[in-house]
Amino acid sequence: MPQPVKRTLKLVLAYDGADFHGWQVQPGLRTVQGLLSDALARVTGCRVLPQGSGRTDAGVHALSQVASLELEAAIPTGNLAKALNDLLPATIRVLSVKEMEAEFHARHSARAKTYLYRIFREAICPPFLARYVYHYPYPLDEAVMQRTAKMVEGEHDFTSFAAADPERGRAGAETSNLRTIFASSWERPGEELVYTVRGSGFLHHMVRNLVGTFLLVGKGVLDERGLRRILDSKDRSAAGATAPACGLYLKSVEY
Amino acid sequence: MPQPVKRTLKLVLAYDGADFHGWQVQPGLRTVQGLLSDALARVTGCRVLPQGSGRTDAGVHALSQVASLELEAAIPTGNLAKALNDLLPATIRVLSVKEMEAEFHARHSARAKTYLYRIFREAICPPFLARYVYHYPYPLDEAVMQRTAKMVEGEHDFTSFAAADPERGRAGAETSNLRTIFASSWERPGEELVYTVRGSGFLHHMVRNLVGTFLLVGKGVLDERGLRRILDSKDRSAAGATAPACGLYLKSVEY
Repeated sequence: MPQPVKRTLKLVLAYDGADFHGWQVQPGLRTVQGLLSDALARVTGCRVLPQGSGRTDAGVHALSQVASLELEAAIPTGNLAKALNDLLPATIRVLSVKEMEAEFHARHSARAKTYLYRIFREAICPPFLARYVYHYPYPLDEAVMQRTAKMVEGEHDFTSFAAADPERGRAGAETSNLRTIFASSWERPGEELVYTVRGSGFLHHMVRNLVGTFLLVGKGVLDERGLRRILDSKDRSAAGATAPACGLYLKSVEY
Repeated sequence: MPQPVKRTLKLVLAYDGADFHGWQVQPGLRTVQGLLSDALARVTGCRVLPQGSGRTDAGVHALSQVASLELEAAIPTGNLAKALNDLLPATIRVLSVKEMEAEFHARHSARAKTYLYRIFREAICPPFLARYVYHYPYPLDEAVMQRTAKMVEGEHDFTSFAAADPERGRAGAETSNLRTIFASSWERPGEELVYTVRGSGFLHHMVRNLVGTFLLVGKGVLDERGLRRILDSKDRSAAGATAPACGLYLKSVEY
């Protein structure tokens, strides 16, 4: 029987957000972090709370969320993914488990994240996509959306696009709303209009608020100068509505 | 205001079977037929029960189910699909509505139906496919499955592949288990193994029982002679287990 050794593990996970009350553990609710912690406890005998690269809200999907944890258990790293997948619901999958240096932390070590937002543009949305896209079949000037997407690239104070953050003000919580966006663009592969944004980090609801604001631009309610004004105003009430969670995907986290 | 005229309508529908207790209306349960009847009542003021080309069980999906109904209402045919989709859950979509000759009946007029069955073959099934495929990552001789699939083509008594049918024995219910299969084949486009079967009609659970039996062949538990014996025996207990509903799709109905 192998002896327990203390290891820092990196888990890569995918999940269908429609089935869960978001990432973060909450008493009495089905959350990804909670279910993963329960499965880890059953497999290893140790109660640990895996740390995500960030929280995802209820309904938000992950193609590749990263979690880290310290584990002192005998189970070989190579067997862990299968053992966890056997216990987790089919709408959460552990894609890989890797042993890391002790300092690795899914949130603190992250250098960049990429999100996708999918908008289905045809009149009738297939029932098999209902959980996975935002259905918006109305007219949009997609070219102007693509042009204005570039305006948020670079370093900006994104206060206008941040929800009130419940973690804010807590000791040790980050307080600056400065973030760097490396790339921001809309593309139209077929029936979907897809927003891709890669940045150093994102405020709570930031991608959904950006999408909501680009939709105002697409509808002609807001122009380039209006978007600039919102960005400069650092006032949440200036921006567009938060786009629905079902269209959003955490695509990848870079370290 | 247009006058009510009596019309026979053909509706083409798609639905995600995971959300419903099958097609057929049942008191107190969410069924596709029941929800469609409710939506029709709200749109037209008339309570009608649309007749499907056949029942689909709980969990079984439809890419293109057909329903017929007689309607005496003022709403133009061209507006009906949108009006119904505005009321139906997003996992049921009316794809088209067409006025037909008075004799048209979705079940009696059908000449052929095609079903698909999707089996996901990789070790980890993406969470976004969990509702839409049967995950079977274990070894299978796919070539022998493809060869034996051809054996059910032609006219056969499919009693060995029929579930006990609750409609059976009712006055006017069909009693022969003879059906003609026009085409039966397995294909492997990428990570999925897909069964496609087109026939004159199908008994209750017939496609899922055929798939369960082909899986026995793929596992090496059953050979060609064994399959022939099952077909000839006309005994349900001889065939393989019923494959899970989540992999099955009604693909099309021909008239």
